[in-house]
Amino acid sequence: MIIVLRSDVTEEQIKHIVEKTQQLGLKANISRGVERTVIGLIGPEDVLRVTPLEIFSGVEQVIPVLAPYKLVSREFQEENSIIKITNKVKVGGKKLVVMAGPCSIESLKGLRRIAKKTKKAGATVLRGGAFKPRTSPYDFQGMGEEGLKILKQVGEEMDLATVTEIMDPRQLELTCQYTDILQVGARNMQNFTLLKEIGKTKKPVLLKRGISATIKEWLMSAEYILANGNFDVMLCERGIRTFETETRNTLDINAVAVVKEKSHLPIIIDPSHGTGVWNYVAGGAKAGVAAGCDGLMIEVHDNPEEAFSDGQQSLVPEKFSKMMVDLKKIATAVSRDI
Amino acid sequence: MIIVLRSDVTEEQIKHIVEKTQQLGLKANISRGVERTVIGLIGPEDVLRVTPLEIFSGVEQVIPVLAPYKLVSREFQEENSIIKITNKVKVGGKKLVVMAGPCSIESLKGLRRIAKKTKKAGATVLRGGAFKPRTSPYDFQGMGEEGLKILKQVGEEMDLATVTEIMDPRQLELTCQYTDILQVGARNMQNFTLLKEIGKTKKPVLLKRGISATIKEWLMSAEYILANGNFDVMLCERGIRTFETETRNTLDINAVAVVKEKSHLPIIIDPSHGTGVWNYVAGGAKAGVAAGCDGLMIEVHDNPEEAFSDGQQSLVPEKFSKMMVDLKKIATAVSRDI
Amino acid sequence: MIIVLRSDVTEEQIKHIVEKTQQLGLKANISRGVERTVIGLIGPEDVLRVTPLEIFSGVEQVIPVLAPYKLVSREFQEENSIIKITNKVKVGGKKLVVMAGPCSIESLKGLRRIAKKTKKAGATVLRGGAFKPRTSPYDFQGMGEEGLKILKQVGEEMDLATVTEIMDPRQLELTCQYTDILQVGARNMQNFTLLKEIGKTKKPVLLKRGISATIKEWLMSAEYILANGNFDVMLCERGIRTFETETRNTLDINAVAVVKEKSHLPIIIDPSHGTGVWNYVAGGAKAGVAAGCDGLMIEVHDNPEEAFSDGQQSLVPEKFSKMMVDLKKIATAVSRDI
Amino acid sequence: MIIVLRSDVTEEQIKHIVEKTQQLGLKANISRGVERTVIGLIGPEDVLRVTPLEIFSGVEQVIPVLAPYKLVSREFQEENSIIKITNKVKVGGKKLVVMAGPCSIESLKGLRRIAKKTKKAGATVLRGGAFKPRTSPYDFQGMGEEGLKILKQVGEEMDLATVTEIMDPRQLELTCQYTDILQVGARNMQNFTLLKEIGKTKKPVLLKRGISATIKEWLMSAEYILANGNFDVMLCERGIRTFETETRNTLDINAVAVVKEKSHLPIIIDPSHGTGVWNYVAGGAKAGVAAGCDGLMIEVHDNPEEAFSDGQQSLVPEKFSKMMVDLKKIATAVSRDI
Repeated sequence: MIIVLRSDVTEEQIKHIVEKTQQLGLKANISRGVERTVIGLIGPEDVLRVTPLEIFSGVEQVIPVLAPYKLVSREFQEENSIIKITNKVKVGGKKLVVMAGPCSIESLKGLRRIAKKTKKAGATVLRGGAFKPRTSPYDFQGMGEEGLKILKQVGEEMDLATVTEIMDPRQLELTCQYTDILQVGARNMQNFTLLKEIGKTKKPVLLKRGISATIKEWLMSAEYILANGNFDVMLCERGIRTFETETRNTLDINAVAVVKEKSHLPIIIDPSHGTGVWNYVAGGAKAGVAAGCDGLMIEVHDNPEEAFSDGQQSLVPEKFSKMMVDLKKIATAVSRDI
Repeated sequence: MIIVLRSDVTEEQIKHIVEKTQQLGLKANISRGVERTVIGLIGPEDVLRVTPLEIFSGVEQVIPVLAPYKLVSREFQEENSIIKITNKVKVGGKKLVVMAGPCSIESLKGLRRIAKKTKKAGATVLRGGAFKPRTSPYDFQGMGEEGLKILKQVGEEMDLATVTEIMDPRQLELTCQYTDILQVGARNMQNFTLLKEIGKTKKPVLLKRGISATIKEWLMSAEYILANGNFDVMLCERGIRTFETETRNTLDINAVAVVKEKSHLPIIIDPSHGTGVWNYVAGGAKAGVAAGCDGLMIEVHDNPEEAFSDGQQSLVPEKFSKMMVDLKKIATAVSRDI
Repeated sequence: MIIVLRSDVTEEQIKHIVEKTQQLGLKANISRGVERTVIGLIGPEDVLRVTPLEIFSGVEQVIPVLAPYKLVSREFQEENSIIKITNKVKVGGKKLVVMAGPCSIESLKGLRRIAKKTKKAGATVLRGGAFKPRTSPYDFQGMGEEGLKILKQVGEEMDLATVTEIMDPRQLELTCQYTDILQVGARNMQNFTLLKEIGKTKKPVLLKRGISATIKEWLMSAEYILANGNFDVMLCERGIRTFETETRNTLDINAVAVVKEKSHLPIIIDPSHGTGVWNYVAGGAKAGVAAGCDGLMIEVHDNPEEAFSDGQQSLVPEKFSKMMVDLKKIATAVSRDI
Repeated sequence: MIIVLRSDVTEEQIKHIVEKTQQLGLKANISRGVERTVIGLIGPEDVLRVTPLEIFSGVEQVIPVLAPYKLVSREFQEENSIIKITNKVKVGGKKLVVMAGPCSIESLKGLRRIAKKTKKAGATVLRGGAFKPRTSPYDFQGMGEEGLKILKQVGEEMDLATVTEIMDPRQLELTCQYTDILQVGARNMQNFTLLKEIGKTKKPVLLKRGISATIKEWLMSAEYILANGNFDVMLCERGIRTFETETRNTLDINAVAVVKEKSHLPIIIDPSHGTGVWNYVAGGAKAGVAAGCDGLMIEVHDNPEEAFSDGQQSLVPEKFSKMMVDLKKIATAVSRDI
């Protein structure tokens, strides 16, 4: 932690600040410059969290030196985390994982039909929502437990791992019975209640980035899960909110390189939400693979005209298969497999 | 709903779209222009929510004509809602409400000391957090139920109404016993699980705007609460996330005029979060009153250097009292009282 | 300037960095912490501008301590600047300036008619564009020199000071002959060529904030003008671009407090562009006055239905007059005059 | 153009709007719905530009049906534009162009040294700034004409095409003598004065996207150049401003797919500015190629520690060469060449 003092700071103010930091167990290193005096604090930065040094008289700014996350950082663990979903599916190694399926689970037959095609094209995880977070209270809210049962059944029939969104801590136990991966949606990235509960389970987690979350905040939300004991977290970039309106969100492709540098956790790209337009999905997926992501999450529906949600960003299975062929070439070009 | 067709749309595609909308019970009005053909749909727009017309072949764009919210709209209720908090405190009328207190409840003595001063300066609602949503798992997470008890006790002693944040649907029943107003924080604005449960209570709600929520999404979140039966919702503008870094958030002062035009619900301004710097709080509060808000929510702490959270944006009671004097003059200038 | 080193920095790397900074004439103060070593540099920070210390091996981050602007800062000049426009009009003192008029100058008669009404309501500066920056090449681009002549003529007839936008350095000499204030539009805030040329004149300048400029960048653009010799700069907040779409821009009301703290230059609020909707203009204007701005710039047109540009955000003279009455009360409430 | 009327619109208001649009030569098609009446206008939408229908009494919103650009659109020209820079370099076909070189031209020897290495790695265009737009008036502003001479000389020696930024319309003639491509920087994307002048030349143009420009605005700026007669425009995505601070800008990779759908113009990716950190540049470049861009612009410097500008985002030649090897594989995977 570095404290930059105002040009008109008094000696008494400096003394007060130094005393305060010493009480907190820190060593203060004062550096008197021509235009500003700066205090470097040596010791565990954590104690400063609850002390708003910014408001001490004479302080101009307080600059943290360390990242606020620990367990998720590369400093804590240098090598990439490899997360075991099932015996067959592992995320974070050379092989990219592809999670595909409809936005909402709508029927057993429908999910089975879609799963058959996504599997054939190379997907190994089946996605499908049973509890849907919808902007409008009047929109379809998901099939609930019946949907979870369908997901599990189809996953087992097809030998596909499964992922579904969890929104309510009260549904956690239930949901854990039916799915291989718990998805935390963008709107719940800072639902700390939920994060803590999920941290106490042993289920792998797909943590979506909040629509306006910085990468630092996203890593802090992952830290919540790890700090509660669950280290099996995959990060999922799904587009951020910007001023651009041609696309539903702006896929932050830079996030792949940043996350890879800062953290050992795998990163998945969701180009369906990252673009919001089916016609742009393949471009986002290709970019993600080329940039070095560890997997993709793609909405696929065989009759988007009748989909209960997100039809406009869903690929039909034929487009999905075609895209997978292209992605394999790019994966090879960057020394990965799909 | 208006459907704009592509310049190369075929008659067959038009026929398919028209048939589809007729199945949905809508009347289609086709208007063939020089460069584009447009279909106007007449009938209840709601049926279109689950039908992604954007992806029908030949469609260029789909434009909704109606706002997606109903119960919160001025069309549904023309006159301003006046929300009764207690016998003494009402929100939405000529008199502005001022909610003040510390970010976190830290002790009985401390809250009592602060409450005494905010009341003297003119505040009628006491704020204080017992469950704190913190970006870091290592930060102070609030006193929990003990905090709620303190809040209730001090509120009763001082004859102040109370407001506190609710984060977890499982704590709803508990929290309702201790507070007069339930606050939904910015991070939970789209925690639909929570919104639905709160909608089933009879408690007045302070719904903060999400950090990157559009006004439309914010009103839709309010709609969730009203649609579940609770009409006592106050909206709270607390700053949005932008590229500017001199302030923690950008207080969207325009939101006052927009909300007043679109909705009958009261709007509260929170300049503490809206600026994030104590020195800028008074400016935001004054702007809010001048722009026509129905109340303010202000963080006050009598020893910010020792505050457990948000010290850098808390006013000391002396600054708060001074600001209240200024605000009274502005309220008078815009024909309101504080 | 503070250099935070990586946890794995080597002694050799530290030595290389220290040598480099010594070559630049700086004294390096090394502070070895538990988790990070930090180097504080003492001396003129400017020499570091051209040396990208971030890329030196072993460096994690480089943190500037000083603001990059000088002449515009409160440290350079503590008291508020008062800018003399004409013998009658001064900006930055107790009396707020109101600049009003149409977006574009359209005819002598029209401008005269509008000016008569804005003057009667209390405006002392007449605005009107002769060169219009339009997003589309097919939109009306302004009357050019003929417009400037009309502006000057009406200003003289009515004894109003005048302001008009300058876009092209080649039109600077011409424009200076006709106007009292040179306006730099948002799109040209970082047209450094133009800023330098304007800095060489003696004309007062109204520098609009760029649509996505940080306050720091805005002050740096003002610094360009002052550094070239012209100290008569007024800053104009006119809304920034955010994700919100209900309003054309988001009026950053916080900017008033930030600018007042950092700089001695006056700040003007433009609620016409800051909202983009005539119906929201008065709210923005009131907020600006309450927050402590030094003046307002308002688009007024007596027949918005026929205006050549910006009709949707122009006030008719009757609404403008009504608003001025309200603004006077608020100005009094904050101890200012209009 | 579609006009949505308010629910309380009167017949007289409708009549007034219809008359107005008929005066403009448009045919009005009225569609009376259950909750709203809608007027569809048939005829040349352009006449509506100067008529702010939004403010007519009874109007709720006005929705344009057509994109505001013409010449740059796919509707105007279906096949991709291929732009001839020199006899050897063409942009927009199967072969991707790579433009590489230092941010600023610093010396003949230095540029020659860098150019030799970028050429060897496969770049065919040499970039280098002679006039630099710098946020601070105290930063290095470029070598000016001397820099242009060096650029031309090295380009000829090495048989590389050249690109350099133009900021001032007064330097246009001069600059055209020395370079093969005129670059319009992000800060000047809406310097309409400059765009018009460039439109009158025959030089190929690289038009960078403004830091907060929508894709629509960017295409409109290109339209300015085409409308003035110069069709040889390349669009360059260089990152947009968002709330994220880990990277200097957020590379909008979605822009590739959107531009390819809307326009026939080639699109170049600049990952140096799009990330702002040399270590993230390769990721952005790979993503761009995979997503389908037509070329790359990369900052390369052989001694970034001594670079006069942008050292922190410049690649050293060895990293650049390594990246080019990787890019070739990805280009092949998407059926392109580099």
